[in-house]
Amino acid sequence: MPVSIITNHAIRLVARPVGEPNRGDFSFTDETLPPIQDGEMLVKVEYLSLDPAMRGWMKEGKSYIPPVALNDVMRAGGIGRVIESKHAKFAVGDYVSGMVNVQTYCITDGRGFVKVDPSLAPLTTYLNVLGMPGMTAYWGLLDVGQPKPGETLVVSGAAGAVGATVGQVAKIKGCRVVGIAGGKDKCDYVVNTLGFDACIDYKSEDVQKALKANCPNGVDIYFDNVGGDILDAVLTRINLRARIVICGAISQYNNTEAVKGPANYLSLLVNRARMEGIVVFDYAPKYKEAAMEMSGWLSAKKMVSKEHVVEGIDTFPETLMKLFKGENFGKLVLKV
Amino acid sequence: MPVSIITNHAIRLVARPVGEPNRGDFSFTDETLPPIQDGEMLVKVEYLSLDPAMRGWMKEGKSYIPPVALNDVMRAGGIGRVIESKHAKFAVGDYVSGMVNVQTYCITDGRGFVKVDPSLAPLTTYLNVLGMPGMTAYWGLLDVGQPKPGETLVVSGAAGAVGATVGQVAKIKGCRVVGIAGGKDKCDYVVNTLGFDACIDYKSEDVQKALKANCPNGVDIYFDNVGGDILDAVLTRINLRARIVICGAISQYNNTEAVKGPANYLSLLVNRARMEGIVVFDYAPKYKEAAMEMSGWLSAKKMVSKEHVVEGIDTFPETLMKLFKGENFGKLVLKV
Repeated sequence: MPVSIITNHAIRLVARPVGEPNRGDFSFTDETLPPIQDGEMLVKVEYLSLDPAMRGWMKEGKSYIPPVALNDVMRAGGIGRVIESKHAKFAVGDYVSGMVNVQTYCITDGRGFVKVDPSLAPLTTYLNVLGMPGMTAYWGLLDVGQPKPGETLVVSGAAGAVGATVGQVAKIKGCRVVGIAGGKDKCDYVVNTLGFDACIDYKSEDVQKALKANCPNGVDIYFDNVGGDILDAVLTRINLRARIVICGAISQYNNTEAVKGPANYLSLLVNRARMEGIVVFDYAPKYKEAAMEMSGWLSAKKMVSKEHVVEGIDTFPETLMKLFKGENFGKLVLKV
Repeated sequence: MPVSIITNHAIRLVARPVGEPNRGDFSFTDETLPPIQDGEMLVKVEYLSLDPAMRGWMKEGKSYIPPVALNDVMRAGGIGRVIESKHAKFAVGDYVSGMVNVQTYCITDGRGFVKVDPSLAPLTTYLNVLGMPGMTAYWGLLDVGQPKPGETLVVSGAAGAVGATVGQVAKIKGCRVVGIAGGKDKCDYVVNTLGFDACIDYKSEDVQKALKANCPNGVDIYFDNVGGDILDAVLTRINLRARIVICGAISQYNNTEAVKGPANYLSLLVNRARMEGIVVFDYAPKYKEAAMEMSGWLSAKKMVSKEHVVEGIDTFPETLMKLFKGENFGKLVLKV
């Protein structure tokens, strides 16, 4: 069989961004791929997941996974189709999800990859409710947040990938759900499409007052995707034994100065409350359980999975910035 | 029986302190006491417990208990002797512990009071290891900190009442115990008398470097009595699944500006760690259990209870300030 010559277009991290990442922090390279070895497969990348966590992967220093090395292809999860395989578990034509990175083709030994079924859900759903954001939302909420019927949950980044799923699952679990998002359009979407009880527009409202008005019984669970002033505002409204899930702090990721710590953290003491961090990878053995339950809810129209798809791999630096500017509406996905 | 006329000398809160409390925030009054009613007793106050929490009680606003009202006698726990009783459960001659407040005599219906036995331990021990600080340390450590043998515990305010007991109990539970205290004398005492493995002098050492040197396996539990920069330094050294017990923040109580939030709180995310507040009153049903176990350890010389006793009720404002200046050496007690 003649070996076809395939050119891979990749976006590499060439500088550690200071503040907001920009085009100059990346290079755009074209390279002929080597033939695959036994145990490997070649994946044509179709969709890339763009996530706030990517900003952390660009930084030097200790974190939950090592940073992307300079000149390496930028790390990204995504979905692709197997076009050549010497791997026992994956065949040509399979759709797979895994760390494909920001490139048009990916050669992998299949570690961390799973098959996805395009007949059960659109491919992009596997980057959203049935992917990392969904797993983060589901396990962060259920394992750390421990929602009980009748409790009030507040979630920031409510129109984003994780926030949308957190709120929808909390509604299914019987909570009063209040979102926080930026702008009237997003807030309308959060209430009307996602079915939250209310949504606070942090761009036009006093968050502390709005929390008081919308959470008459206080806040039992706060799922924090943003940090900064919003975390501080929620801390003033928490109930006894409240649980604060620290999932992210998008307001702080591009800081060139020190992160703003929550000045109201002593509310944890007064209220015997808990603030706890989560990292989705810890729940890998339980992804399937969550995906099964949520695909049932999706089929039953009890929840929705909305993606914001932008086309063109070379738009990566600018498209990523949409997350930090709050310009995405649903899970941000790059179509390769 | 002729009713004796008793004059009560009381120290009242007359102004809400701004920054450090000072003498002008209090009045010193003498009043003839009314006769006691059925169900009441008259207690001659002997020792008062001086605690960092008192600063919070002077502030207006929502907390775990209401603030002291202006012109009321300043709230304080203490030990006294019953000198007159119309109460079924307490007899003349009994020694009792409870909220006696900053005064020479206390009339009470006995709610929240318990008898203490001066033949089992010195009276001041009932304000320390066998009192609120001991209960705070014991339950905060065991319930929230959840120490396991071989883990590393760090405690700030290590020479103070709560810190000393936290570290001693953690040693008994098989932890490596590292204290943080101010000054060489305190650090020597923490290591030599209390038996900690090491003690960092935050006044002369770089806390972050010293933590690295003294906690080669990282920090599994941090029991925080101080907040501020020390909390931030410890956050850089915590292990996966670490527990941070928020017991107090003495460095922040006299702030006239905003509390300094922990800028490194995202270490909770990276390490899937937990920060949780405790208030001792929640453990009231279990005080006896802790006191039984710790009095056994005291008798067996497995731990010590050291009090710093100052004489003279009228020194209250200045003596209280010793806590915030770090001048106390062991549990601070005022002898009336």
